Amino acid sequence: MPQPLPPDYMAYDRTIVVFSPDGRLLQVEYARQMVKNGTTAVGIRIKDGVLLGAVKTVMPLAVPNSYKKIWEIDDHIAAVSAGSLADARSLIDQARVRAQVNRITYGEAISVSSITKYICDRKHLVTQYAGVRPYGVGLLIGGVDETGPKLYETEPSGTMIEWKAQAIGRGSDKAKSVLTKGYKDNLDLKKGTELLLKSLKSGEKNVKPENISGVFVTSEGIKPLSFKEVR
Amino acid sequence: MPQPLPPDYMAYDRTIVVFSPDGRLLQVEYARQMVKNGTTAVGIRIKDGVLLGAVKTVMPLAVPNSYKKIWEIDDHIAAVSAGSLADARSLIDQARVRAQVNRITYGEAISVSSITKYICDRKHLVTQYAGVRPYGVGLLIGGVDETGPKLYETEPSGTMIEWKAQAIGRGSDKAKSVLTKGYKDNLDLKKGTELLLKSLKSGEKNVKPENISGVFVTSEGIKPLSFKEVR
Amino acid sequence: MPQPLPPDYMAYDRTIVVFSPDGRLLQVEYARQMVKNGTTAVGIRIKDGVLLGAVKTVMPLAVPNSYKKIWEIDDHIAAVSAGSLADARSLIDQARVRAQVNRITYGEAISVSSITKYICDRKHLVTQYAGVRPYGVGLLIGGVDETGPKLYETEPSGTMIEWKAQAIGRGSDKAKSVLTKGYKDNLDLKKGTELLLKSLKSGEKNVKPENISGVFVTSEGIKPLSFKEVR
Amino acid sequence: MPQPLPPDYMAYDRTIVVFSPDGRLLQVEYARQMVKNGTTAVGIRIKDGVLLGAVKTVMPLAVPNSYKKIWEIDDHIAAVSAGSLADARSLIDQARVRAQVNRITYGEAISVSSITKYICDRKHLVTQYAGVRPYGVGLLIGGVDETGPKLYETEPSGTMIEWKAQAIGRGSDKAKSVLTKGYKDNLDLKKGTELLLKSLKSGEKNVKPENISGVFVTSEGIKPLSFKEVR
Amino acid sequence: MPQPLPPDYMAYDRTIVVFSPDGRLLQVEYARQMVKNGTTAVGIRIKDGVLLGAVKTVMPLAVPNSYKKIWEIDDHIAAVSAGSLADARSLIDQARVRAQVNRITYGEAISVSSITKYICDRKHLVTQYAGVRPYGVGLLIGGVDETGPKLYETEPSGTMIEWKAQAIGRGSDKAKSVLTKGYKDNLDLKKGTELLLKSLKSGEKNVKPENISGVFVTSEGIKPLSFKEVR
Amino acid sequence: MPQPLPPDYMAYDRTIVVFSPDGRLLQVEYARQMVKNGTTAVGIRIKDGVLLGAVKTVMPLAVPNSYKKIWEIDDHIAAVSAGSLADARSLIDQARVRAQVNRITYGEAISVSSITKYICDRKHLVTQYAGVRPYGVGLLIGGVDETGPKLYETEPSGTMIEWKAQAIGRGSDKAKSVLTKGYKDNLDLKKGTELLLKSLKSGEKNVKPENISGVFVTSEGIKPLSFKEVR
Amino acid sequence: MPQPLPPDYMAYDRTIVVFSPDGRLLQVEYARQMVKNGTTAVGIRIKDGVLLGAVKTVMPLAVPNSYKKIWEIDDHIAAVSAGSLADARSLIDQARVRAQVNRITYGEAISVSSITKYICDRKHLVTQYAGVRPYGVGLLIGGVDETGPKLYETEPSGTMIEWKAQAIGRGSDKAKSVLTKGYKDNLDLKKGTELLLKSLKSGEKNVKPENISGVFVTSEGIKPLSFKEVR
Repeated sequence: MPQPLPPDYMAYDRTIVVFSPDGRLLQVEYARQMVKNGTTAVGIRIKDGVLLGAVKTVMPLAVPNSYKKIWEIDDHIAAVSAGSLADARSLIDQARVRAQVNRITYGEAISVSSITKYICDRKHLVTQYAGVRPYGVGLLIGGVDETGPKLYETEPSGTMIEWKAQAIGRGSDKAKSVLTKGYKDNLDLKKGTELLLKSLKSGEKNVKPENISGVFVTSEGIKPLSFKEVR
Repeated sequence: MPQPLPPDYMAYDRTIVVFSPDGRLLQVEYARQMVKNGTTAVGIRIKDGVLLGAVKTVMPLAVPNSYKKIWEIDDHIAAVSAGSLADARSLIDQARVRAQVNRITYGEAISVSSITKYICDRKHLVTQYAGVRPYGVGLLIGGVDETGPKLYETEPSGTMIEWKAQAIGRGSDKAKSVLTKGYKDNLDLKKGTELLLKSLKSGEKNVKPENISGVFVTSEGIKPLSFKEVR
Repeated sequence: MPQPLPPDYMAYDRTIVVFSPDGRLLQVEYARQMVKNGTTAVGIRIKDGVLLGAVKTVMPLAVPNSYKKIWEIDDHIAAVSAGSLADARSLIDQARVRAQVNRITYGEAISVSSITKYICDRKHLVTQYAGVRPYGVGLLIGGVDETGPKLYETEPSGTMIEWKAQAIGRGSDKAKSVLTKGYKDNLDLKKGTELLLKSLKSGEKNVKPENISGVFVTSEGIKPLSFKEVR
Repeated sequence: MPQPLPPDYMAYDRTIVVFSPDGRLLQVEYARQMVKNGTTAVGIRIKDGVLLGAVKTVMPLAVPNSYKKIWEIDDHIAAVSAGSLADARSLIDQARVRAQVNRITYGEAISVSSITKYICDRKHLVTQYAGVRPYGVGLLIGGVDETGPKLYETEPSGTMIEWKAQAIGRGSDKAKSVLTKGYKDNLDLKKGTELLLKSLKSGEKNVKPENISGVFVTSEGIKPLSFKEVR
Repeated sequence: MPQPLPPDYMAYDRTIVVFSPDGRLLQVEYARQMVKNGTTAVGIRIKDGVLLGAVKTVMPLAVPNSYKKIWEIDDHIAAVSAGSLADARSLIDQARVRAQVNRITYGEAISVSSITKYICDRKHLVTQYAGVRPYGVGLLIGGVDETGPKLYETEPSGTMIEWKAQAIGRGSDKAKSVLTKGYKDNLDLKKGTELLLKSLKSGEKNVKPENISGVFVTSEGIKPLSFKEVR
Repeated sequence: MPQPLPPDYMAYDRTIVVFSPDGRLLQVEYARQMVKNGTTAVGIRIKDGVLLGAVKTVMPLAVPNSYKKIWEIDDHIAAVSAGSLADARSLIDQARVRAQVNRITYGEAISVSSITKYICDRKHLVTQYAGVRPYGVGLLIGGVDETGPKLYETEPSGTMIEWKAQAIGRGSDKAKSVLTKGYKDNLDLKKGTELLLKSLKSGEKNVKPENISGVFVTSEGIKPLSFKEVR
Repeated sequence: MPQPLPPDYMAYDRTIVVFSPDGRLLQVEYARQMVKNGTTAVGIRIKDGVLLGAVKTVMPLAVPNSYKKIWEIDDHIAAVSAGSLADARSLIDQARVRAQVNRITYGEAISVSSITKYICDRKHLVTQYAGVRPYGVGLLIGGVDETGPKLYETEPSGTMIEWKAQAIGRGSDKAKSVLTKGYKDNLDLKKGTELLLKSLKSGEKNVKPENISGVFVTSEGIKPLSFKEVR
């Protein structure tokens, strides 16, 4: 049985998205906390593409890649999530449909910023209306379009920020320090993968390379990363 | 009359699905607890098929198989449930219709992953909107399609994971230990059934073979298991 | 005026169907308690039919059979209820319409399992959506169709179980003991009626044969039982 | 200004119709209490018809029969109410329309049981759905149809019972004792009216014959009773 | 700023129309209290018509008759209100439309009882459904139709009573005593106006004839009363 | 950050428009308090027109007349507001559309009473239904139509009163005293403007003529007042 | 995990937009507090255009201008926001569509006041209806249309004010003092930019020119400001 909660928690159970007296949207902040509770995920914009990586939860009998946190959205766009897997799956499904609709309607691949904006609009909507809860998931969306490699973050409020490199999840504070120190523009794949691995490991205890999964998103497709070669 | 609940419980009765300050969806966790309160159920992917088994509640005057926890979804897909039987029946009914629609629309049997995704979408939806509660049931869905034997788990949040072998319900912790130790790829039917029986018994007290029911899902149909022969 | 309730009850008045932290649906359990508060009802599957019986509340000026707990659904299906009479009447009315629709649509009588499933679907639906309460009534549904005599129980959660013999209501625990000891397959009408009477009397104080009503549901129709002859 | 209510009452104000832990529908029970707070009303099935009577509230300047508690539904059916007059008026209006629709649709007068069932369906519906409160009124419905004289009671839960004689309202307990002792089948009008008067007076303090109104419902119409002649 | 309310009031703010354990509809009773807080209004059925009178709130700069409590519904029907002026205006507007629709549909003036019933139906409806509050206004409706002069009262529950003479508002208790003592059938205009004035003055402190307004509703129209001539 | 509110306030935040036990609609009274918190506004009916005036909030960098409290509704009707500027803007916009619709539909200017009634209907509606809050604004509406100059007040309950002169807002008590003493029928423009200025200044501290704005509504249009010439 | 909130906050979580007893709309005030928590933003109307500036949050790995607070609405209109970026993005998107619709429908650019009014209408609407929360963002909207340069402020209540110069966000009090002292009509670009920089720096600690972004909105388009040249 789950642990009994202290009495102070009782009021929050009943909350819809409203402002607190100090001007905060508490339900959105709690959804952010669910993201913060997830395993660490990192994205890095490098030369010719974007690296996305995540720490895998160790489950010996699970089929590899089934409990995945890296999602393909289109041939040229992928995402890595922290927080609710079910919320991530729902948002990614909507984004995949949106990407296909773009191909059919305009005859071309959707841009990374457009797909991110679409997801942010969904996320924002549910923070404004009653009867639905915020999405408890953060996404780092990486892709390559006509404007080059792009990395975006979406979080539960629906805010959209473009990053050179960013980390989310429980180890994000330490991972961001590693990224800030080590990031340089136009890193090559080897250096980028090293930085990805280092930042992911900084925020998680005793994580081994085989517990990390990653992809390299390029204009030619999404390629799995092999961390054993690195280091 | 049911036992009086301690005052701390009072707030939870009134809850819709919202976040707690520490980033959890309490109603979803309580629904998971209902799954955890159910009798143990186990699924194992073996050579040429999937084994599903469950402990039967002993009710001398009930018609055998009427209070069942193993459900046929289509000729090639079955499921075993832990938690609310009524919720299970409702979800399985929806899945059966979905499977038939697939046959009619595409002229072929639905894949195990598609039917699982369909059930997970239903489960996720009711965790996001007010006015409806989460499903209080976990399902292990086993089947054989063009990609071979497949075993999936769905739980109240709508998360979908593929397993080689998995256990749910009140004895799931002990049953998982047995599975982790004993599982090997491509077990034959005899060895698989032995593992199924052993894992089911590990988590329940004094359970006898006649209190256990199971099926072997193959590409040629769903066959009942006979546990008396085993051991 | 009704007795003042202790403060602990106050929270429950405001409840919709949601999970408690220990994984229970409280409103469904309270509805079950209403069934448990009702007078005892018993059903027994015997040779060529099903016996249904209930204890009548003694009301000297009431017209006999007006405050009835045994309901005819179709020529070949009847039910006995424990709990809310008003809820029972509403469900039975819906089931009667459903049975007639089956005759008109398919040109044949509905099966006992189909009509039970229909009632269970109604019961389950109202446990999942806000804005409507669970049905506070249990039904034992007996009938004879192409598969022979059948006895089903439905309770407020929408769970559906097939029984050889079953009891519901305030005396159900004692009545079930009597049934478990005395039940045999293919009892004849005389022995079956004796068992029905014995089980009904076991759970109620000082009940006399004239306070008990019962029917024998056969493929040729529903016949009232005469308990005075028995014993 | 109304009396301040004790703190224990505060929770009930906010209640919709839900179950209490001991399996009661509190809002329905409180609505029954409103019936119980009303002035006494009595119905008696006699030879060739049904007697309905009620105690009139003494209001010197009110136009006689304007604050009435006896209602004509159709030529052959009347009702007496206890509890909310406004709820009674609303229900009776619906029943009158229903009775006329029956005449137009089927070319014949509606039966007493059909009109009662119609009212009970309305009453039951509002006990099951949120957003509407139960009817706070009880009705004794008397009439004569092809099956002879009939007397039914409806109460806030929507339960429907047929009576030989019945009393509702604040004096109902004492009035029922009088009815139980004095009732005989096929009483003539004089004896029936005496019993009606005696039962009504038993439950009210210092009530005089002129404060009692009553009708005799027959197959030839509804006739006012004169209580001065009696006694 | 309004006076701080004692803590006991806090629960009532959140109330919809539900029953209290002692069988009362609290929101309806509080709406009645708003009527009781209004200035006194009186209606008297006299020879050939109905007198309606009200105490005017003294507001020196208000345009005479603008803050009125006497309302014309049709040529032959008027009303006097106590309680919310805004609620009165809304109800009267609906009644005026209803009266005109009657003229157009049936080619004749609506009866006083029909228009009162219409208003009572509106009032009752809002006591039964959530999401709308009761009307906080009482009306005395006077008119002359084919059945002669008629005086009705409607109060927040939707109850409808016909009176020979009646008073509502803050001075109604004292005014009713005056009416009960002084009322006689078929009073002439002079005697009736004297009784109206006397009853209105009995329940209000230091009210002067010029602070009282009144009308005489006849079959030939609605005529203002001059109170200076009286007394 | 706003000041912490005392615990007694907590209940009011959650209120919809319902009655308190003493027969008051609290949300409407609190909306009135918002009007009472606004700067003082005054209206005076004079010879050939209506004067409307308001105290301007001193904001040195605001564009003059942008933070305005005097609103033109049609060529012949203007209004001055106290309370929520956003609510005022919304109501005035609706009134302007209504006025134009009248011109198009009937080919003539709308009367002052009709436009006021329209606004009052809007205001009343939101006091009766849940899911929407009352308007927190009071309006003095002045205009000239076929019946001559007219001045009306609307307040949050939807009550409509016609005045010779009236004041609303934080200084309304003192301003009304000045108006009551100084008002005479058919004041000329100079005397009227002096009275307007005097009453506005009486209720505000240290207000200078340049902080007051006003208009003279006539049948020939709405003309700004110059207060510097006065006094 | 977020800091535990003191018990006094508990009530506010559950609030919809209703009045407090002292006539305030608390949810709107809390939304204003979110604006007040944002970084400082300033707008100044100068000769031939409007200057808009904001302090940038320092995030080393963010792509410059991606976490932007200055938004282009149309060729001739821009806005600077303080508060929720997600709310700002949603409102600006709606305004952009509105501006394009104007061009298509009327063949001309929308005026600054029209686009501001449109945004204010959206903001006001969500303060009046339940089920949706106020926008937690303030906007300074600057543009040049046929009436010359214009600067408007919109805040969460939906109030609309035109300014010569205005500041919002956490440093707005100090920034307004700087603006009030330094503002003159028809400042040239150099003097205006100096005032913008000075006011922005006054309310933020240790802000450097490179952390400030700004635009000059003219009739010929929106030009970025270079703050390094200034000072």
